[in-house]
Amino acid sequence: MTIENARRVRADGARTRSTVLRQATELSTVVGLDGLSIGALATAAGMSKSGIYAHFGSKLELQLTTIDEADRIFRAHVIEPALALPGPHAQLLGLCDRYLDHLDDRVFSGGCFFSAAVMEMGPRPGPVRDRLSRFQRELSALLARLVMESQAEGRLAGEDPRGLVFEVTGQFLAASAAYTLTDDPEVLALARTTLHRRLG
Amino acid sequence: MTIENARRVRADGARTRSTVLRQATELSTVVGLDGLSIGALATAAGMSKSGIYAHFGSKLELQLTTIDEADRIFRAHVIEPALALPGPHAQLLGLCDRYLDHLDDRVFSGGCFFSAAVMEMGPRPGPVRDRLSRFQRELSALLARLVMESQAEGRLAGEDPRGLVFEVTGQFLAASAAYTLTDDPEVLALARTTLHRRLG
Repeated sequence: MTIENARRVRADGARTRSTVLRQATELSTVVGLDGLSIGALATAAGMSKSGIYAHFGSKLELQLTTIDEADRIFRAHVIEPALALPGPHAQLLGLCDRYLDHLDDRVFSGGCFFSAAVMEMGPRPGPVRDRLSRFQRELSALLARLVMESQAEGRLAGEDPRGLVFEVTGQFLAASAAYTLTDDPEVLALARTTLHRRLG
Repeated sequence: MTIENARRVRADGARTRSTVLRQATELSTVVGLDGLSIGALATAAGMSKSGIYAHFGSKLELQLTTIDEADRIFRAHVIEPALALPGPHAQLLGLCDRYLDHLDDRVFSGGCFFSAAVMEMGPRPGPVRDRLSRFQRELSALLARLVMESQAEGRLAGEDPRGLVFEVTGQFLAASAAYTLTDDPEVLALARTTLHRRLG
């Protein structure tokens, strides 16, 4: 849903759960998942706290549902366009490109939703951390599969897939951290060059 | 200061500013820099809010002083031992090793103070973000100097220092994120292998 659409829905007084959820993902990339309270979302969405409760029931449910929504957005903007490319090596490079594009396009206004969420909630055991771990495992497994399928086609010979995936996710994190701090597009160009050289 | 020392000081009723500051760095690696309010620190330290105010004056001053303290701890545990090694290439590898050691030793109980702080506060312009940017610039400049001095000794030939520093800091972030999520020492071993292979 675009911002324009979201505004129209609000103006019509017919605000839906999915609209509020999109606002929750935006809010949490700026104030953090822990800052995503029922009250803070109510203020950001211009709704009553009871209106937010009616949709989400508790802060924990709000956090988990927001992560699901961020996961859906990440797949739609990063993973699915990459997997539409022909062959595993193009898909692997495409996923790197789309990751950097999603920072550049500010798909989440505060940067990479998952980089920030993992750093924030990693030290706090519980259902939120478990949900974030699942995302990280799934992304790493996808990248490892693309590396191994590329190797079956004669590329990336002799690389340890797990080590290479670790390097790639490190570049994602470095790009996310540096771009968030500096707003300098040169950071994204540097990450793109590094990833293409490493995987090319 | 050790935890035992901190307890003794508290028991003696002679709690010092530096003791409270150490608690502030610990607290902020778990609840975030934004969660580091005067009230939260007072609760964690078992002090009155006015006692905390007497030391720090405002939440912003508390945040900035806490970053200075984390910077001092990071230098003492990571940078200074590395720079005591002979020659720039040993110093570069030593800095990587000490970074991973500081995660393993849980110098900060919530993981890498600066990884978490940059991801949290990067999207929020202001003095806290500016202070974190300064840390990141200084660390990157130190790493780049060590790369260039290693090159002057005939190592790391043909590498772009800025790109290589970006890769190294990416490995730091990846290790920090994955270790925080999984508590799996294998993550640190993987990062160490990757960094030594890349820089060796």
